[in-house]
Amino acid sequence: MAKDPLPSWRAGKVKSAILDFVARVTDPGGADFVPAPQRIAAFDNDGTLWCERPFLPQFYFASERLDALVKREPELAGRVPFKPYVERDLPAIKQLGKRGLLEVVAAVHGGTTVDEFAAIAREWLGRATNPKLGRRFVDLVYVPQLELLDYLRANGFKCFIVSGGGIDLIRGFAENVYGIPPEQVVGSSERLHFEMRGDKGVIVKEAALASFDDREVKPVNIALHIGRRPILVFGNSDGDLAMMRYALSGEGASLALLLHHDDATREFEYDRDYVISPLSEALEKAGDYGITLVSMKGDWDRVFAG
Amino acid sequence: MAKDPLPSWRAGKVKSAILDFVARVTDPGGADFVPAPQRIAAFDNDGTLWCERPFLPQFYFASERLDALVKREPELAGRVPFKPYVERDLPAIKQLGKRGLLEVVAAVHGGTTVDEFAAIAREWLGRATNPKLGRRFVDLVYVPQLELLDYLRANGFKCFIVSGGGIDLIRGFAENVYGIPPEQVVGSSERLHFEMRGDKGVIVKEAALASFDDREVKPVNIALHIGRRPILVFGNSDGDLAMMRYALSGEGASLALLLHHDDATREFEYDRDYVISPLSEALEKAGDYGITLVSMKGDWDRVFAG
Ligand SMILES: [Ca+2]
Ligand SMILES: [Ca+2]
Repeated sequence: MAKDPLPSWRAGKVKSAILDFVARVTDPGGADFVPAPQRIAAFDNDGTLWCERPFLPQFYFASERLDALVKREPELAGRVPFKPYVERDLPAIKQLGKRGLLEVVAAVHGGTTVDEFAAIAREWLGRATNPKLGRRFVDLVYVPQLELLDYLRANGFKCFIVSGGGIDLIRGFAENVYGIPPEQVVGSSERLHFEMRGDKGVIVKEAALASFDDREVKPVNIALHIGRRPILVFGNSDGDLAMMRYALSGEGASLALLLHHDDATREFEYDRDYVISPLSEALEKAGDYGITLVSMKGDWDRVFAG
Repeated sequence: MAKDPLPSWRAGKVKSAILDFVARVTDPGGADFVPAPQRIAAFDNDGTLWCERPFLPQFYFASERLDALVKREPELAGRVPFKPYVERDLPAIKQLGKRGLLEVVAAVHGGTTVDEFAAIAREWLGRATNPKLGRRFVDLVYVPQLELLDYLRANGFKCFIVSGGGIDLIRGFAENVYGIPPEQVVGSSERLHFEMRGDKGVIVKEAALASFDDREVKPVNIALHIGRRPILVFGNSDGDLAMMRYALSGEGASLALLLHHDDATREFEYDRDYVISPLSEALEKAGDYGITLVSMKGDWDRVFAG
């Protein structure tokens, strides 16, 4: 018997659905065969590939960056969109949602070049830890998903991230941690411009969000960046529903997977009430829409490495 | 002796510069080594990979589509931005430039889904011919460039198109003709939105240009779509100067190539006076900026296949 390509996935309906789907689309003689260049997979990031609780890693990054900025320019503390963040006013922060967070990220980094940002992000990612789990954010990635990414690539898939998170923060670790290169990362992004600084051409981030890559914007950015309809999509919230329905309404075989965080012991248990990125409609309608529900508790034999 | 990887390139300074650059960045023991994932090449399309004269292929596409639209809705003929196109008023069309053309393309296809557009583009590309050269546009691609793309890929480069042309028209032939998949095509793009039509999710083009991918916007879109600074850039007009300077001001080795259309016998001879996409500053400053000038007449042994 061949080696199990997904050892951290427990035997069951979900694992079988994944193995069966990959077998069907890669069988050159089968009715569901998809040529390799069209085997596009799109993964959400926060809560799908890495842990997003107690709060999004990007929140801790933005807060630290903002504190440093306010130290230099104290008058910013009272201004929109910074105030609730400076005051760590969690109800207000949640109210502003993921978009509000991305707006803070954009505002904090206005004037920073993408090269400067990359260095800042790498430094932070190298040391920043999850306050609840006590481990680095980059180590709190889901082992079953790393196996799935490898398995898909071994079967001719090209795997993309399509995230509501900031595109350049994700690019700071996706290649090392997931094996996903920068050009296969789609995310929220700021307005940018090009300028010559002396004889050096640089790309400068502006203090304005250009694309908040969530919900209906996800399939739009897939069309812009990828130019093909994915045949496999993996998400964990209502923010992924549009790209799931987009994938599922393609011509050929397709698979949409939805991770349900129902494991308070090994990770967190949450869905509708996680205000910043709730899972509600996608959970209720999964059956109607043909979405395959993945239970962290039931379907994953391991969650994190080590 | 190994087989010449660039048989349609004549021996000389330019060919040597290309071979030498690729040898340097792929030599693991050398000072200029670049790991394969960072070997990003960006090619302009119109006039760099395929022939853009007497007029941009996209002009003929837009004109045909517009004529069909005006037949159905005659009142559009007098409206902005259609009037000069309906009247084939070439001086006015040139005045409006490449952006004007892209605005017509956007306006004509407002309400079309990307899937519908792909079918329309494929049908047109399959039959449309260059009125002067009498061959299909897709057959008027430059053989030396096809060899260069293959040579770069064989040496671990990932080749992208970064074009002022409409992204979805290019995606209609780039994979078959250049071996460049849709996700490696960057171009001008319309605003898009996602909607459910019955139980089918579609991406709809809106009648508005979102990004005109020319000049300073090219490096901006490279940062957005690719997320790495290219180490090799190939262009043919001032529209490519910003991305050339961006590539040339990276940390390591880099090469920027500029094709000069100086071959009235085999193709066309033009530069400053081609109003729709002139070559002027890049030509004058090539030496100062470290750009390698490529002469179609001198450096290419063949231009087109057949
Ligand atoms: Ca998520
Ligand atoms: Ca050009």
